[in-house]
Amino acid sequence: MSRIEIYDTTLRDGTQGEGFNLSLQDKLAIAQKLDELGVDYIEGGFPLSNPKDAAFFRDVRELKLKHAKVAAFGMTRRRGIKAEDDPGMKALLEAETPVVTIVGKSSEFQVTKVLGVSLEENLKMIGDTVALMRSAGRQVVYDAEHFFDAYKANAEYAIRTLLAAQEAGASVLALCDTNGGSMPEHVARAVADVLKQTSARVGVHTHNDCGMAMANGLAGIAAGATHGQGTINGVGERCGNMDLLPFIANLRLKYGHDCLRADSLKHLTETSRYVYEIANMSPINGQPYVGASAFAHKGGMHVHAVQKDASTYEHVSPETVGNSRKVLVSEMSGQSNIAAKAGKKFDIESDKEVLRKVLGRVQDLENEGYQFEAAEASFELLLRKEIGRYRKYFELDHYRCVILRQNGSDPLSEATVKLHVGGDSQHQVAEGDGPVAALDGALRKALRAHYPQIDQVHLTDYKVRVINSKDETSAKVRVVIECKRNRSPGDGSTEGKKELFGTIGVSTNVIDASWQALVDAYEYHLVHVEEGAGQP
Amino acid sequence: MSRIEIYDTTLRDGTQGEGFNLSLQDKLAIAQKLDELGVDYIEGGFPLSNPKDAAFFRDVRELKLKHAKVAAFGMTRRRGIKAEDDPGMKALLEAETPVVTIVGKSSEFQVTKVLGVSLEENLKMIGDTVALMRSAGRQVVYDAEHFFDAYKANAEYAIRTLLAAQEAGASVLALCDTNGGSMPEHVARAVADVLKQTSARVGVHTHNDCGMAMANGLAGIAAGATHGQGTINGVGERCGNMDLLPFIANLRLKYGHDCLRADSLKHLTETSRYVYEIANMSPINGQPYVGASAFAHKGGMHVHAVQKDASTYEHVSPETVGNSRKVLVSEMSGQSNIAAKAGKKFDIESDKEVLRKVLGRVQDLENEGYQFEAAEASFELLLRKEIGRYRKYFELDHYRCVILRQNGSDPLSEATVKLHVGGDSQHQVAEGDGPVAALDGALRKALRAHYPQIDQVHLTDYKVRVINSKDETSAKVRVVIECKRNRSPGDGSTEGKKELFGTIGVSTNVIDASWQALVDAYEYHLVHVEEGAGQP
Repeated sequence: MSRIEIYDTTLRDGTQGEGFNLSLQDKLAIAQKLDELGVDYIEGGFPLSNPKDAAFFRDVRELKLKHAKVAAFGMTRRRGIKAEDDPGMKALLEAETPVVTIVGKSSEFQVTKVLGVSLEENLKMIGDTVALMRSAGRQVVYDAEHFFDAYKANAEYAIRTLLAAQEAGASVLALCDTNGGSMPEHVARAVADVLKQTSARVGVHTHNDCGMAMANGLAGIAAGATHGQGTINGVGERCGNMDLLPFIANLRLKYGHDCLRADSLKHLTETSRYVYEIANMSPINGQPYVGASAFAHKGGMHVHAVQKDASTYEHVSPETVGNSRKVLVSEMSGQSNIAAKAGKKFDIESDKEVLRKVLGRVQDLENEGYQFEAAEASFELLLRKEIGRYRKYFELDHYRCVILRQNGSDPLSEATVKLHVGGDSQHQVAEGDGPVAALDGALRKALRAHYPQIDQVHLTDYKVRVINSKDETSAKVRVVIECKRNRSPGDGSTEGKKELFGTIGVSTNVIDASWQALVDAYEYHLVHVEEGAGQP
Repeated sequence: MSRIEIYDTTLRDGTQGEGFNLSLQDKLAIAQKLDELGVDYIEGGFPLSNPKDAAFFRDVRELKLKHAKVAAFGMTRRRGIKAEDDPGMKALLEAETPVVTIVGKSSEFQVTKVLGVSLEENLKMIGDTVALMRSAGRQVVYDAEHFFDAYKANAEYAIRTLLAAQEAGASVLALCDTNGGSMPEHVARAVADVLKQTSARVGVHTHNDCGMAMANGLAGIAAGATHGQGTINGVGERCGNMDLLPFIANLRLKYGHDCLRADSLKHLTETSRYVYEIANMSPINGQPYVGASAFAHKGGMHVHAVQKDASTYEHVSPETVGNSRKVLVSEMSGQSNIAAKAGKKFDIESDKEVLRKVLGRVQDLENEGYQFEAAEASFELLLRKEIGRYRKYFELDHYRCVILRQNGSDPLSEATVKLHVGGDSQHQVAEGDGPVAALDGALRKALRAHYPQIDQVHLTDYKVRVINSKDETSAKVRVVIECKRNRSPGDGSTEGKKELFGTIGVSTNVIDASWQALVDAYEYHLVHVEEGAGQP
């Protein structure tokens, strides 16, 4: 089977999505990551539309990408002027990319209604633009906007627009389902017909307005297209573009097509998370193949079966795409979830009484708004309390947080914490950029005298979510903290071995919810340092 | 064309999804909403698995649903005992539902590996279970678990399991892609073959592990199935079940199938949001048809075209499915976005200089972490500042927030606010469930003496999001507040006409970000009261 080209437009079409906004540095970082994944083309932006995109094309050259070809995106020349006089053409040429992608109109309706030009003039605009780019030595990808709708309305004219691009030298004809309204049987028919009437490589560019972006992309490939356009995580205007990550997984694992490099598959999950992180977006947990829940098992019956044989409820193994299996603890859990989660460390698998008590406690706390799915360290502390393997390292006397803002000044945050540690009292104060940072600073100061190992744990992420938001500012908030700790600080051989873990707090008071999560994080670290001290 | 039955399993399979947890009251509220939408079946739960589901079946009878039939879900009887002696069967019968859905094994692998019984015994387990339910007067839907994988491995045995259910009296044979790993051409082939060999109604139940739940559901219908199973918003284990809302829209709008009631389509969006709200889940903005971004236009070129004719970038009109169009303001915006957003109220469409300044200010603030997409009132205030239609109603002297927690007590939150209002000083103090509620209370007290109309605006939602989360507790937070105000408090004829609006604040300090959003909310309300005072 022929190799399928992967064309990424995260940095251009992707950024037209609501909530997906990238700085210049973000765009460069993502380009680097896409090149590492092995994509064939990176569409970097629309140089005419904003100065950031023009700067991207200048700076991306310094990255010295290994595999991917960078493409600049633009429209066909305006009506009534020569291509070489059009500011859009100049901006495209100044981008100095090896590839230029030109979008043109395919349908009578779009040509006459939106562009307001004649059908013949549209063909000339396509041909002139492609020819100019070819004469400047660029490879041209031609994006046929609204192609599938246009093909339905007037197949003959739609194909003439493709031929205009092909005759002027375009090497790829990408058929776009711009509005995302097409169904796969129509996409397949149109692709097959285009392949009969053209000689250039044919590609598909699909959108998810009907939940069919992936199905349409795969239908196009099945009909003979060998070039797929989409974005990482399916970001993009309205309902988004086709998500390239599951597309690549489906091409390779379900159809045996060749695409990217041999080892690319196992980087799909990390690429997904990297892009969410760079863009500060909340990941979609149920994202196919790469989502945090994609291999998460919650129903008790499923957990039981997966423990016997993972293929009972997994269509591929999570490691194939760099993801991992997850067993969730919730009210739906049977005791097998609790036992699986407790793992070998606590050996409570056969202790039905403990399993029942822990399950009951989890269910009570979930009713109050806790969720242990992302707070495994808090779950472990809960379990330790039930089986007598919990130790209280300190006792709160009080904490106080003050936020003061005076007209014309930045707000000031100060926290005091008084703890009883052993027979001693520790009373400390700290400032911070915000109240939680101040509180954390004072708590760490108060612990440090007795527990210097506190310096081996660090906060890496802080999340707040309002739950039960109907009660206005008095609603409950859930705080989840992520931390990183050195596993075995005293042992040279494993120095640098890190553990990531999460803790949770719930309260109507955001500061107190944060306090609970901080306390869990430090208790979890201290108990592990203590228990690990004698071990290799 | 024959009518397609819609079978909703949000309350059963849906609740196996990570982060989707429902109380008994939540389940009843959703059942009511599903009945209003017009679904044919509501699968309410698995009565054996937890007491909440058993209670649901008792209480749902009091709702007196108008259209939907309620189904209780259970497995086939255990091996080696009579169906009538199985506790699962008893729980199902005690649910007293008109419909019982029985899930059984279809594949040699699942039967021998997971159940550990012979292939013949599995057929007896299916037949006995269905027969018992039929003899108790129940309609039986038979869910053939892992059907498509089983059909691939051994089509003959897979079909024998269906025949066992059919012969015992099942009225629907629902073929399940339990692991979500099948592709639509395989689903279509299997459905067509099953239809040849059986006489009961055939249904499809698909999962989204390859991003193909929707495509597989539609492929099954195209091959002749007339019953579709899924969940609202596609919630469900791992990557979720097929999302019924776009499925219904696709069946009706793309294929002209009959399903639900004539007027159901325009309730799809509200049903989606209702379920997210009840479950306290963050909606997926890009959700096909019903997402908040499904008809959002951000690219300047798209906005320009949609203003000429919406069908240029919309495959269906948003009103068809109860959704609405949205024009986004961002750095990608051309001036057409700003002009469209400002609307008729400010009449700046032709003032290029103002448009340019506002666009620049939006871009600067977005670089600092602001997002005006959900904060239209803050955007309007920004615009008013540029065109000289802003008025400062009060000046901050200082605010102070104190959070104190003493061992054994609940945390206490107290805020003081001192404002200069006209020539007067207002210095007030309030307590609250948390610091933001306390601050809001003190601010409202300080404003009330001069602006009693402050009582006509109320907070309805409060959201916090950490942005740039790499900086631990010093990261910036974005607070978005939603408010509801009476538009024309003095005029009896429009009394009760409400406006919902959003404001935003960004800071490293969560309290100060909240303060900014609160101030915008009150300023927005006050300027509208003032300007609206003389109008009808």
